[in-house]
Amino acid sequence: MGYTIDSLEYSIWSRPRFEEWRRGGVDAVHVTCAIWEDQREAVREVTRMRRHIRENSDILALAQSGDDIVAAKAAGKTAVVIGFQNASPLEDDLDLVDAFHALGVRIIQLTYNIQNLVAGSCYEEKDGGVSSRFGRNVIKEMNRVGILVDLSHCGEQTCLDAIEISDRPVAITHGNPAEFVGDTIELKQRNRSNKVIQALTEKGGMVGLSMYPRIAPDGQNVTLRRFCEMVAWTAERFGTKNIGVGSDLYLDQPETTLMWWRAGRWAREPLVPITSGLPDFPDWFKTPADFPNITAGLKEYGFHQDEIDGVMGGNWLRFFTESFQPA
Amino acid sequence: MGYTIDSLEYSIWSRPRFEEWRRGGVDAVHVTCAIWEDQREAVREVTRMRRHIRENSDILALAQSGDDIVAAKAAGKTAVVIGFQNASPLEDDLDLVDAFHALGVRIIQLTYNIQNLVAGSCYEEKDGGVSSRFGRNVIKEMNRVGILVDLSHCGEQTCLDAIEISDRPVAITHGNPAEFVGDTIELKQRNRSNKVIQALTEKGGMVGLSMYPRIAPDGQNVTLRRFCEMVAWTAERFGTKNIGVGSDLYLDQPETTLMWWRAGRWAREPLVPITSGLPDFPDWFKTPADFPNITAGLKEYGFHQDEIDGVMGGNWLRFFTESFQPA
Repeated sequence: MGYTIDSLEYSIWSRPRFEEWRRGGVDAVHVTCAIWEDQREAVREVTRMRRHIRENSDILALAQSGDDIVAAKAAGKTAVVIGFQNASPLEDDLDLVDAFHALGVRIIQLTYNIQNLVAGSCYEEKDGGVSSRFGRNVIKEMNRVGILVDLSHCGEQTCLDAIEISDRPVAITHGNPAEFVGDTIELKQRNRSNKVIQALTEKGGMVGLSMYPRIAPDGQNVTLRRFCEMVAWTAERFGTKNIGVGSDLYLDQPETTLMWWRAGRWAREPLVPITSGLPDFPDWFKTPADFPNITAGLKEYGFHQDEIDGVMGGNWLRFFTESFQPA
Repeated sequence: MGYTIDSLEYSIWSRPRFEEWRRGGVDAVHVTCAIWEDQREAVREVTRMRRHIRENSDILALAQSGDDIVAAKAAGKTAVVIGFQNASPLEDDLDLVDAFHALGVRIIQLTYNIQNLVAGSCYEEKDGGVSSRFGRNVIKEMNRVGILVDLSHCGEQTCLDAIEISDRPVAITHGNPAEFVGDTIELKQRNRSNKVIQALTEKGGMVGLSMYPRIAPDGQNVTLRRFCEMVAWTAERFGTKNIGVGSDLYLDQPETTLMWWRAGRWAREPLVPITSGLPDFPDWFKTPADFPNITAGLKEYGFHQDEIDGVMGGNWLRFFTESFQPA
């Protein structure tokens, strides 16, 4: 039986959400515990997630290694990989990489939607790349302890720099190929150029493809077949072994969250206008309980079973296993 | 070969201090990483200590369990037990017990020199005991994760309450029996009544006896023989198995530190007048390299070898092994 792994979810966590993971046969999920949070706030979010895992230990387990994911699956549980979508919790303190690693954090995205002390974001007009001394040190320290570098919201130059600087393969946990998706969507900055995906996958990195309507092909109208086409297109160019699913799913988030995501504390106006509420995910992926739909879709599209096993979770399992080991 | 363990030191850490541990055959040391520090400051101190351990990994190891101490000794290293002399790093957040446990903290003293959110201090005129809801919750949470409750600077009522509330044995890592020491010293509040030591040891707790001049018998003039007499006096009344050595040694601390210890941020005047600088430790215990002097002193005093092995470290090893296990 193959693995099912989602490389990015950002829901409001509660028992019903965890039960959906079980219903969908989800073996591991990378959950976001910080976007703009500073150290103190991020510790609060991480300890809250650790408490969720403890209080739901009949169906959840903390994933600090690939072995933890394997053990969780064997026990009929979902392994939770704790991550940040920003380096903001690190403040200006290199030792906080070690501290958050000790707390169980295994993935950190270098930037969220604006430039930070580490690097540049995909939403800044000008992305200076990983030009800061601190940024380079952070990547090296993440390499050392075994925290995966995530580039999902980073700018083009930051992606290229980080791929170059990192001694270990890096990932885009939730993002799509810009060339395939095209310009039909509002937030095209979030998808990645072939140049970045090529450089990343050449060094063994992974991309988590998403049906999040704002970055998916055909946006809100993305069909399961179109999603599978994107998998095939990406696999053909960059290798099936370098692809997984990173839904970017958010459930139970209040509408007010959009303002937090897009303005944080650093603006009075959102960086992308809020023209409507949070977009609905497609009918074939309303919750993680729908993961079997994707498996079925890939099969119908004509993928081989071993390719399906890889894309659905096997590739992330292999990659997480390597990435979470200390250097 | 028996173990040598010091249950409290608070020096400015550097390679020469670590080498003194090795010269003294010290297998484990409980080091203080916070006295008035809040969460953020304590994380900084803990990560700094973790870095010292990493950068001196030829002679140091982090002690998160009794097994870690055993392994360190076998490898010719000193195991470092990270602790706080105050609950201030926990702020008002019960989840920070889990967070600091994940960071490797294994001992927390409930109060330093003033009342805090958890309990009362030995230097307050009135000690309300562990009267706060938060205080009781903190003790239960420490019991759960496996962080040892330390009562060294706590008031009489707080000690009695904590011994009662805690589901697991607790310790005075650095303190002496007040009845034996008498009133000849300035800081008599820091030593403990027979009532407290009786209640603590009856439940399996430990006391780390100290030659720190401010709390030692005959103060600055404490001889090795007088220290051994205190060991014998305490052993006779409360059991040899419940005694260890907790030097309270501070090396390289600047004189200005006294003001920080005695006034923190909460006063402009020190709670005990600073009449002179930091007192010198006795000639027979200038640094941890002098630990063999204590072993020799106990032998000359007439202790049996198994008693010496226990007092010098075997008792702390047994106690730490039990105390650091999760409930």
